[in-house]
Amino acid sequence: MKANFKNDYSVLCHPQILKALEKYSSEVNEVYGLDRHSKRAKRYIREIFGLPKAKVFFVNGGTMANMLFISYVLKPYEAIIACKSAHINVHESGAIEGSGHKIIVKEGFNGKLYPEDIKEVVDAHVDEHMVKPRLVYISNSTEIGSIYSAKELRDLYKFCKENDLYLYIDGARLGAALTSRNNDLKALELGEVCDAFSIGGAKNGLISGEALVIKDKELAKDFRFHIKNKGAMSSKGYFLGIQFAEIFKNTLYFDLARHSNEMAYKLYKGLEELNVDMLPFETNQIFVRVENRFVDKIVEDFGVEIWAKGEERTIVRFVTSFSTTIKDVDFALKFFKELN
Amino acid sequence: MKANFKNDYSVLCHPQILKALEKYSSEVNEVYGLDRHSKRAKRYIREIFGLPKAKVFFVNGGTMANMLFISYVLKPYEAIIACKSAHINVHESGAIEGSGHKIIVKEGFNGKLYPEDIKEVVDAHVDEHMVKPRLVYISNSTEIGSIYSAKELRDLYKFCKENDLYLYIDGARLGAALTSRNNDLKALELGEVCDAFSIGGAKNGLISGEALVIKDKELAKDFRFHIKNKGAMSSKGYFLGIQFAEIFKNTLYFDLARHSNEMAYKLYKGLEELNVDMLPFETNQIFVRVENRFVDKIVEDFGVEIWAKGEERTIVRFVTSFSTTIKDVDFALKFFKELN
Amino acid sequence: MKANFKNDYSVLCHPQILKALEKYSSEVNEVYGLDRHSKRAKRYIREIFGLPKAKVFFVNGGTMANMLFISYVLKPYEAIIACKSAHINVHESGAIEGSGHKIIVKEGFNGKLYPEDIKEVVDAHVDEHMVKPRLVYISNSTEIGSIYSAKELRDLYKFCKENDLYLYIDGARLGAALTSRNNDLKALELGEVCDAFSIGGAKNGLISGEALVIKDKELAKDFRFHIKNKGAMSSKGYFLGIQFAEIFKNTLYFDLARHSNEMAYKLYKGLEELNVDMLPFETNQIFVRVENRFVDKIVEDFGVEIWAKGEERTIVRFVTSFSTTIKDVDFALKFFKELN
Amino acid sequence: MKANFKNDYSVLCHPQILKALEKYSSEVNEVYGLDRHSKRAKRYIREIFGLPKAKVFFVNGGTMANMLFISYVLKPYEAIIACKSAHINVHESGAIEGSGHKIIVKEGFNGKLYPEDIKEVVDAHVDEHMVKPRLVYISNSTEIGSIYSAKELRDLYKFCKENDLYLYIDGARLGAALTSRNNDLKALELGEVCDAFSIGGAKNGLISGEALVIKDKELAKDFRFHIKNKGAMSSKGYFLGIQFAEIFKNTLYFDLARHSNEMAYKLYKGLEELNVDMLPFETNQIFVRVENRFVDKIVEDFGVEIWAKGEERTIVRFVTSFSTTIKDVDFALKFFKELN
Repeated sequence: MKANFKNDYSVLCHPQILKALEKYSSEVNEVYGLDRHSKRAKRYIREIFGLPKAKVFFVNGGTMANMLFISYVLKPYEAIIACKSAHINVHESGAIEGSGHKIIVKEGFNGKLYPEDIKEVVDAHVDEHMVKPRLVYISNSTEIGSIYSAKELRDLYKFCKENDLYLYIDGARLGAALTSRNNDLKALELGEVCDAFSIGGAKNGLISGEALVIKDKELAKDFRFHIKNKGAMSSKGYFLGIQFAEIFKNTLYFDLARHSNEMAYKLYKGLEELNVDMLPFETNQIFVRVENRFVDKIVEDFGVEIWAKGEERTIVRFVTSFSTTIKDVDFALKFFKELN
Repeated sequence: MKANFKNDYSVLCHPQILKALEKYSSEVNEVYGLDRHSKRAKRYIREIFGLPKAKVFFVNGGTMANMLFISYVLKPYEAIIACKSAHINVHESGAIEGSGHKIIVKEGFNGKLYPEDIKEVVDAHVDEHMVKPRLVYISNSTEIGSIYSAKELRDLYKFCKENDLYLYIDGARLGAALTSRNNDLKALELGEVCDAFSIGGAKNGLISGEALVIKDKELAKDFRFHIKNKGAMSSKGYFLGIQFAEIFKNTLYFDLARHSNEMAYKLYKGLEELNVDMLPFETNQIFVRVENRFVDKIVEDFGVEIWAKGEERTIVRFVTSFSTTIKDVDFALKFFKELN
Repeated sequence: MKANFKNDYSVLCHPQILKALEKYSSEVNEVYGLDRHSKRAKRYIREIFGLPKAKVFFVNGGTMANMLFISYVLKPYEAIIACKSAHINVHESGAIEGSGHKIIVKEGFNGKLYPEDIKEVVDAHVDEHMVKPRLVYISNSTEIGSIYSAKELRDLYKFCKENDLYLYIDGARLGAALTSRNNDLKALELGEVCDAFSIGGAKNGLISGEALVIKDKELAKDFRFHIKNKGAMSSKGYFLGIQFAEIFKNTLYFDLARHSNEMAYKLYKGLEELNVDMLPFETNQIFVRVENRFVDKIVEDFGVEIWAKGEERTIVRFVTSFSTTIKDVDFALKFFKELN
Repeated sequence: MKANFKNDYSVLCHPQILKALEKYSSEVNEVYGLDRHSKRAKRYIREIFGLPKAKVFFVNGGTMANMLFISYVLKPYEAIIACKSAHINVHESGAIEGSGHKIIVKEGFNGKLYPEDIKEVVDAHVDEHMVKPRLVYISNSTEIGSIYSAKELRDLYKFCKENDLYLYIDGARLGAALTSRNNDLKALELGEVCDAFSIGGAKNGLISGEALVIKDKELAKDFRFHIKNKGAMSSKGYFLGIQFAEIFKNTLYFDLARHSNEMAYKLYKGLEELNVDMLPFETNQIFVRVENRFVDKIVEDFGVEIWAKGEERTIVRFVTSFSTTIKDVDFALKFFKELN
């Protein structure tokens, strides 16, 4: 690999994370997430997102965060509505169904769901022979890098509330969404457009860790029991606490996400000038359509994933991260220039 | 209601069923399905379907039969492939997902799945981030009354075996399929085209009961434990045994199904002559498209279910059963004649 | 077998049940439990138990009824407290755990749980590393034929309510309990001592069927979805409705149970006079301790189950039912007389 | 706190772990556990335990490791046999039952199970109305710090194999067991006495991580699907890989465990001389019985957990770890000396 555009989690972490871990490495801590670092981190998060009463939990992975919240709030016969491209539908090996719940899939548009999608499901599910739709799952940024506008989110949440549906936002790449040039939603407003959301750490500079933020604390009453019951409670919860405190005690979380986005933006703009064929772009993922004969070389040099194969052309995904440098971007641009 | 075309399970049972129950009503029986009637019934079924080594189990409902087999043979991360219109996908309130498994949905055609549908799924599911497709679920007759040809079934099963997939046939209306005028599959051949199938009783003259036939007895080794674990073992298993013995000791099961089909055929042909708009027809369900202004009256007189509502026209479903009479058919034909 | 003391479900049903089925056998019914017979039966039950607002559901088996209620009201990390001898703990093949919940087992006394048993569990379960006890399961009559006094039940329920625990009564043999000579609880009072209970049909003259009575209708809001989700919704719900209506439209349910108890009482008293060694007796089960050399013959003549084997003596269980006759009792007494 | 005997996971990690993480912190890695560090670590583990064909998986926590293996190998109606004190029975919030399986509890002795315990369960579980025992769970060292002798393990495994039972060893504190002064089992022999075992990292100097070792690779065929399905696959699997490689590339894992044990041994011996009342001792946990009036002070100074409260005396648990120093031990001894 000559420049790393593989994904946003192939490098361990931002240097400050390791520094923080070192700093507290000989401290004696409370265990199972009751430590002072976790408490600090939760305080920061409540402030940044303007949710003084929210409950915050740290867990090890995104699939787990999704599954934990969904399986906590739903009864056995209740179902999720999600996009066809939703992470929970495609890339979680049936973890949601494994917890007992059906995902009702809608095509959506550009990786996003709209009130009319939800309405179709609600209208069709009329009696007890069908599951009862009860939670809408969206990702922001989405699996294909798009983001929701503030208005889209407000409309969606309004529709959900009118129809007794929870709205959950998978924020595995929330940082990328909130620091996108196209974004018009403030972090402080996030709580106004959903019932719960996750904040991805692993894809934004942490070693690991997802924060799960549940707005209404009543909704999260016994959530620690649930975490433990699903095998997801870290004995050394302070390992997650230290990391989240580090990244949210100031603006580091957003700085790293913005850096990723900016590197992607530069790459995108440069490729645009070279007339490279690309899908719409908004965050830190760029989907590039290239002739099949170039694919092997591109994969070799940039470690990128193949997204979709066609007869003549293939879509490859370039992902930037906290560790992407301008040198990486320039190298990629040079590569494509020479292709022409 | 002036003539009953509501569905095929709104009348308790065929008179011979009650007669048989009465006959054995003061007998002392072995319990939990180990009684002589259940043994008899299983023997008849093995003979009729030419499967001397198959294991046969009787349970109370179709959703349960489907869920029992599927949840027995699949590991947690393994998934089912089914048609969009599949009963397990639409009308079982998430029972399959409730047992932990994802249903991967394909559009299919005319309620049926084809090898190319399966191939698309198999090709797309390449690694452990996605579920592992392991079982193909089809219904025969399907939820919309269509049936598979012998060749379609053979092709499908061949493809399944080449791809390490189980093929399971939901036979809630198996009788209707096997006695359809279009059918070219012998009961004796059913075991050649699937790994397991159910035989619906409730929709063909029994009070209740589905037989689950598992071809390879190794595949059903501890199945009685599984039935009990899912809360589905009848203490008075002989109640099911007596019914299935009665219906399979001679040709009654097929006679009743054929009667349903013939009544439907007569109705269909009669309506065709009246130029009534209908969907393709093969078994005991007739889907009739009528102007919206007639719907209420039709529902009132025939108890039929509304299948799909349109702006101007509505599809209603006429279902015949063991209890449908030629008088019912004539009454319906007269009704439609007068509509014109 | 010369006289049947095998169990209370080896004979199909009381003649009136079959008669009622016949009476309605050509009627066209609403399906899935929405029929008029189910409605009638529910009305009778609400009246008899003095619970005008209760929700009543009919399902096919006792294990299912237990699992349905328990899995409906509990969150994944919540647990059940039950006696070691509890049916859900011993004889349901892990159905409750299969629905995801731990059963915390206490020894109990004479098949019964007491507030001090519950208190021990509550006191020990202090944090989220342990399950959260949330439901107390008892059977009345118990698995060994004993019954709770009204005071025992009131004390238990009071303790449960003070500790935020549901109390559920498995009434697979509720009739036997309420018609025991020792019983001092009125049917009308049952709702005062628990949150939900089942009423066993199969062990008291019905072909099959358990009624599940949930006192607070809010607690049962979407219960029909749950029934369907667990594969337990009967398409021909009216089959259960007709039976329950028949048995509760007058006093038949209690008459049959009383008959069973009285037959058992006569047998017990007769054996007592013969100085036969027996466990304490209250309902329709008699546990007789006999020398091992007599066991084979007793099993052969009476079809009884072996309850516990010892080096020298064995406990066998004689069960009476609606179909037990005084002739059966006399035959058994004669047998034991001749043993001496 | 004046000296830390709280538990063995209240300090982040051994310095070499952080050093290793730093060393590889800017490397681009394969993700989801397919990286070179994980491969290295697995190779070390296979060598150390003499299991060249074993499959090794790294996951984040002990409860997860236990649940993953158990839920992978068992069918829904199959059950686990475990000690009353077993971690899975007491301190995993019902995670095992949450995955659908019953734990059959035996009293055991000194935290350990013996063939006769298992035999009792096997003998009692005779038919499909009961769960089918299929896996024996033990911990080594146990939850109360005791260890199994090589002979005890061989006898247990032999019995398991004769009865078609899997034997799984929860090795959350495997290091402590294998380096106990009383231990006579070689690491190389571990594979001879069980089907699978875990190797706890978090309680022996790692930040987090448990290795799950499955002897027969056929038994682990699709295990990566299962890990993902349970939400337990780390995107940055190399974080676990780096740690396990570091600790197993030489003897560090055993050195740290031995250090813990030796610190505990010194403390134990010192307390013995002071005639302090203690439970039997073998690894890094010391259970001390003290008068109630001293408890608050002991908890304050040493952070220890209260294990059992009595009317007059209380058992507190002193745990040593990689970070315990001889100064800590001396401080504790001085404290107890002054108590006298």
